[in-house]
Amino acid sequence: MSKVTAVVIHAHGKPEEVVRVEQVELPRVGPKDARMRMLFAPINPADLNVLEGTYPLRPTLPGVVGGEGVGRVEEIGSAVTGVRIGEVVLLPLGVGTWRQEVVCPAEDLIPCPDDIPLEQAAMLRVNPATALRMLLDFVTLAPGEWVVQNSANSGVGRAVFQIARARGWRTINVVRRPELIEELLLLGADVVVLEGEGAEVNIRAATGEAAPRLGLNAVGGESASRLAKALAPSGTLVTYGAMSRQGMRISNGDLIFRDLSFRGFWVSRWYRQATHAARLAMFEEIFILAREGQLHTPVEAVFPLEKAKEAIEAASQGKRGGKILFGGS
Amino acid sequence: MSKVTAVVIHAHGKPEEVVRVEQVELPRVGPKDARMRMLFAPINPADLNVLEGTYPLRPTLPGVVGGEGVGRVEEIGSAVTGVRIGEVVLLPLGVGTWRQEVVCPAEDLIPCPDDIPLEQAAMLRVNPATALRMLLDFVTLAPGEWVVQNSANSGVGRAVFQIARARGWRTINVVRRPELIEELLLLGADVVVLEGEGAEVNIRAATGEAAPRLGLNAVGGESASRLAKALAPSGTLVTYGAMSRQGMRISNGDLIFRDLSFRGFWVSRWYRQATHAARLAMFEEIFILAREGQLHTPVEAVFPLEKAKEAIEAASQGKRGGKILFGGS
Repeated sequence: MSKVTAVVIHAHGKPEEVVRVEQVELPRVGPKDARMRMLFAPINPADLNVLEGTYPLRPTLPGVVGGEGVGRVEEIGSAVTGVRIGEVVLLPLGVGTWRQEVVCPAEDLIPCPDDIPLEQAAMLRVNPATALRMLLDFVTLAPGEWVVQNSANSGVGRAVFQIARARGWRTINVVRRPELIEELLLLGADVVVLEGEGAEVNIRAATGEAAPRLGLNAVGGESASRLAKALAPSGTLVTYGAMSRQGMRISNGDLIFRDLSFRGFWVSRWYRQATHAARLAMFEEIFILAREGQLHTPVEAVFPLEKAKEAIEAASQGKRGGKILFGGS
Repeated sequence: MSKVTAVVIHAHGKPEEVVRVEQVELPRVGPKDARMRMLFAPINPADLNVLEGTYPLRPTLPGVVGGEGVGRVEEIGSAVTGVRIGEVVLLPLGVGTWRQEVVCPAEDLIPCPDDIPLEQAAMLRVNPATALRMLLDFVTLAPGEWVVQNSANSGVGRAVFQIARARGWRTINVVRRPELIEELLLLGADVVVLEGEGAEVNIRAATGEAAPRLGLNAVGGESASRLAKALAPSGTLVTYGAMSRQGMRISNGDLIFRDLSFRGFWVSRWYRQATHAARLAMFEEIFILAREGQLHTPVEAVFPLEKAKEAIEAASQGKRGGKILFGGS
């Protein structure tokens, strides 16, 4: 067995304090397995929660961290037909992507077209998939219909307005920092409003009579309540994140008389429950958008695995210009 | 135009203070109308909310109150075919049933079989319909599956466990008063637990591994949160009342990781959106249950319309032995 460099935790705690760079053993490649060299792997908010121990899915300790990433196939087992040596693939959830090399069942890999920038490919499996599923699976949106979301500058948030733009839906995007308004408008957001008391009034003013039937919430607390207030009767608020770490208070009247639905989305559950054919079908759309640049996530910096602490610190900053990736090891 | 006795409000306020007994004009019976003599009409919690002005549907003031009731057809228009003179019918929502006689479009009436006790028939349109729709329209329950509800001693609550028993589902019923436990068990509740801190533990203990996928909430606040905690992953909590007058706090984890859904139900909306055929189909089932005594609501007292204040006072008591009805005028 060979050893490879990886970002490992032995205990949960403050993210930059618990990560260690170590050599981990790589299992032998079985007949149905593939071995990949990791090319790029992002640091997502959920990864920080895994480090803290607040995420419901976590590695057995000690364990390798990292929720998604892209790799190149270097070796395949004798029974593997779905991927070829040299091919670029999206790595499956749960393997721990912050490592030089990884071995996993080949059938869990998503082959990625050559013409998608590798850094972008590394970020397609969690955020754009979350955005696309939430736009498709809760409310059947008509062309031109409005969708409202908070945390619009997050990875999912940007994917939401980019995918909505490509699909012909309009978005109202709530952000905390005024300097983001111009930027998000340039990137395809239809309307950007500032977070805080009264945001629901600005949302309603933007949509007029056509109040959104779908709201996407990654914040919780008062921000979520404001989205609920802005929804049309019989609308649905989908929660996929909890940045404020506060639950949401739901008014009984919103449930009984306004017929609002409050749902949740977790992309790990979606992957677990979907057939592989459904996953591939979803990526057909995501790959097209990524190739054409309609789906693009800015990258602030790429760190080698050896600089895990610095990378985690950079990713923990509230005001970043883009994603922090591991890569180039 | 003739005049009939009715319970009228000229303004909203404390229920027993705002009701007046007056003579109101009865419109002429048009070709498609029917005129009914009211036989019995209950005082439901929603009626008290109408009097207070806290209910979203309310009569134009001054207006006649009363959400449901049963009458006997005394006159029909020349074009009416659906009901016959002498027939017992359920009166439609919104006509103001607390009155001696009423005229309304015949097509809005639900003909009621002769062999259903009239007092029971008067109480079928709101509570049992609410109970049946909530049991059918949110989660597809398998035989023997558990349903959990609070406010189990209310009109809807009793209908829920009686309909569930007839349909082969099991119920866990949360009540506030210990003396109700024995009574509800005798009436068909499978498990009765006491409201308050820790109720979710008793609910879970009762169902073991088969946690309920459907919860019915008429209270809000902490009671609703306890029901949510007791639900199985991907379960649904349906809110149809707000007795505590407190909203519910939803944990982000319950939405994202446990995939719970929070929905609302309002029977007025159901009637508005349903076809008349769908309404008649629902009452086929409700009438069978009422005829066989599987659906039975105890009556504490019947008041003539002239004693409206006393009736309202009796209905406002927290600890009643049954419904208060108007009738016998």
